[in-house]
Amino acid sequence: MAKYNQGRQSILFPNAPTITAWASVAGKKESEGPLGAYFDRTSQDTYWGEKSWEKAECHMQKTALSLLLHKAGKSMEDLDLVCSGDLLNQCISSSFALRNLNIPALGLYGACSTMAESLLVASMAVSGGFADHVVAMTSSHFAASERQYRFPLGYGGQRSPTAQWTVTGAGGLLLCPSGTGPRVEAATMGTIVDLGITDPGNMGAAMAPAAVSTIQAHLEDLGRSPEDYDLIVTGDLGKLGMDIVADRFARMGAPLGQRYCDCGVLIFDREAQDVHAGGSGCGCSAVVLCGYLLEHLRQGHYKRILFCGTGALLSPTSTQQGESIPGVCHALSITTERR
Amino acid sequence: MAKYNQGRQSILFPNAPTITAWASVAGKKESEGPLGAYFDRTSQDTYWGEKSWEKAECHMQKTALSLLLHKAGKSMEDLDLVCSGDLLNQCISSSFALRNLNIPALGLYGACSTMAESLLVASMAVSGGFADHVVAMTSSHFAASERQYRFPLGYGGQRSPTAQWTVTGAGGLLLCPSGTGPRVEAATMGTIVDLGITDPGNMGAAMAPAAVSTIQAHLEDLGRSPEDYDLIVTGDLGKLGMDIVADRFARMGAPLGQRYCDCGVLIFDREAQDVHAGGSGCGCSAVVLCGYLLEHLRQGHYKRILFCGTGALLSPTSTQQGESIPGVCHALSITTERR
Repeated sequence: MAKYNQGRQSILFPNAPTITAWASVAGKKESEGPLGAYFDRTSQDTYWGEKSWEKAECHMQKTALSLLLHKAGKSMEDLDLVCSGDLLNQCISSSFALRNLNIPALGLYGACSTMAESLLVASMAVSGGFADHVVAMTSSHFAASERQYRFPLGYGGQRSPTAQWTVTGAGGLLLCPSGTGPRVEAATMGTIVDLGITDPGNMGAAMAPAAVSTIQAHLEDLGRSPEDYDLIVTGDLGKLGMDIVADRFARMGAPLGQRYCDCGVLIFDREAQDVHAGGSGCGCSAVVLCGYLLEHLRQGHYKRILFCGTGALLSPTSTQQGESIPGVCHALSITTERR
Repeated sequence: MAKYNQGRQSILFPNAPTITAWASVAGKKESEGPLGAYFDRTSQDTYWGEKSWEKAECHMQKTALSLLLHKAGKSMEDLDLVCSGDLLNQCISSSFALRNLNIPALGLYGACSTMAESLLVASMAVSGGFADHVVAMTSSHFAASERQYRFPLGYGGQRSPTAQWTVTGAGGLLLCPSGTGPRVEAATMGTIVDLGITDPGNMGAAMAPAAVSTIQAHLEDLGRSPEDYDLIVTGDLGKLGMDIVADRFARMGAPLGQRYCDCGVLIFDREAQDVHAGGSGCGCSAVVLCGYLLEHLRQGHYKRILFCGTGALLSPTSTQQGESIPGVCHALSITTERR
C-alpha cells in the first residue's frame, strides 16, 4: 500500500500542509446572511462592474486571489500553482481569472465539491514536495448558474421547496509546507455515488449518499469517530440533504449530533432570505470555509474540523437524456493541533 | 523551494511512476486513419449502441477502463484513484463512467490538455506516496462536441480551413509506483496564456503560445535541450498550430526539427480524410498516447518523449461575450531509460 494511504480512500499527509491565509468575496444576499461579517469583500452590484454575470464571477475570483495575496503578504510571482474550478461550462471563471498571470494552473471539476477537491490536490502538491505556495480557489454566481442550469432569470420560474440557492461568491486559500495557520492533516477521496435521484431541483438528496459514503470511509480508514471532530460540515447539501445524512448516521448508531452542520444551511437564514433548502454552488463551501470556518479555527473555537465538499455531477444535458444524478464528496481534516 | 520542484513550473518525480498498462478505443474515422491499427477497440457505430452521442462518449470511457484493467490484469477493486475529465459540459462522460464503481475519483478540466493534466495529477499522487494504482483517462466525441460547441450536425455548417476535427475516442493508462513500462520522470505545469486570438475556428493558433511557453519552461527549468528527446509531441494543435510552434522555436535558435510532431497531425490523413487542420479534443492526445506513443516507447522506437497536452480554455459563452481564447499546456517527460 502507498506510504501515506490509509485504507483505500484516505491519506494521512506527511508534513501536513499549512493554510497560511484565506480570503472570500460574496454578493449582496450573502452579505445579508448570518455569515455576512466574515467575508472580506462584498458587493451590492451583481455584475461587480462587469458586463455579464459570467465576467462578474471571473472578477470575483480575481478579487479573491488579490485579497488572498495581500493578506498573505505575497505576490503573484510567489505562487507555484493554483488549483481551481467552477460550475460554468468549461470552467471559464477559473481559466479567465488566471489568464496571463504566469502562474502554473490545474483546472478541476467536482461541481460543488470543487473547493474540497482543489484543497485535496493542493495538499498532495505541497505535502508531496512538488510545490511550495499553492492556492485552492473556486467560485459561483447565482445569476450565471440559474441561466446556465435552469431558466433565464427574467422568466421568473417558480422554485421548488427542495431547491437550493446558488451562492454568489469566491473563496481561496494559500497552502504552504510551513507557517502559521490550520493544517490539512488528512483527506478522504470520494467515489461517485448515484442512488437514482432524478430531480435536479433536489440536489441535496442526490448528494447525501456520497456524503455518507465519504464520511463513513474517512472514519473507518483512519479509525476515528465523529467525536474526534469539533465540527463535521458538509458543503452544500442544504437542509434536506443534511437531514438525510444526520438520519443515516443516527440509524447506523454513530450519531453526528450537534457537531454536524452544512455550509448551505450556515450561509443563509433560510426563512428570512427565502432560499428554500439553503445555499449551493462551488462558491458556497468556498466562502464558508475561507470566511467563517478558517476564522473560527484560527480563533480557537474549533480545534479540528472535517470539511466535506459535496458535488452533484449532473448537467442539463444528462437530465434531459433521462439520467439520474451522481454525487461525489471529498473530505479534509483541518486542525490547529500539533501532533 | 519544494523538494522536487525545478524552477517554478517543473517537477522531477522521485521514484518516477511507471505506466504499466494503457488502452484506447476510437471511432470509425480514427480507425481509418494512419494510427488505426494501434487502437484496442474501434466501432463503426457513432452511438456505440447507446441512445445519444453523450452516452456513447461515456460508453467509450467505460470500455477503455475495462480494457485497461484487463490488459493490466487488475480489477476495479485494485484501483486507488481515477483522474479523469472531458469536454462535455460538467464533464458528464467522466463522472457517469465512474458512477457506482466505488473507485475514488478526481475530476479535472483542462480542455484538450486533460490527458496530460490527468497524468500529471496521477503522477503526483503515485510519486508522493498517496495512491498505488491510479488511472488517468479522458475522452471526446466528434458529434457530441460539434453540437455542444458549434452547430447541430444536421445543419451542415461549412468548416473553416483552420478548423480541427474532434476525435471520437477514449484513452486511459494505469500508473503504479513500480512495474514494467515507461516512466513519468518529469513534468512541467502550464500557465494560462492568451495572446488575443478570438476565432474559435482556429484553436491551433490560440493554443500554440501556451505550448511554446510550457516547452520553453520545461527545457529551462530542467536544463535540457530538444535533443534530449526522441520526440516532442504537442496534442493537439493541428497543422497550423504546430507550424507556429516549430517556427517560434526555430526563430529562438532552438529548432525542434524532425523530432517535433502533433497528435492532431498524427491521427488523421489530413488530405484524404478531409479534416482540415487535423484532430482535436481530449480524446485525440489520449488515444495517440495510449495507443501509438506508449506502444512505440515499449517497442524501443523512442527512449524519451515529451508529451505536451494543449487545451483551449474557451466556452461558447465566452466567445459570444467577445472574449479571446486562453490556452494551457502541460508537459510530461516519459522515458524507458533507467537512471
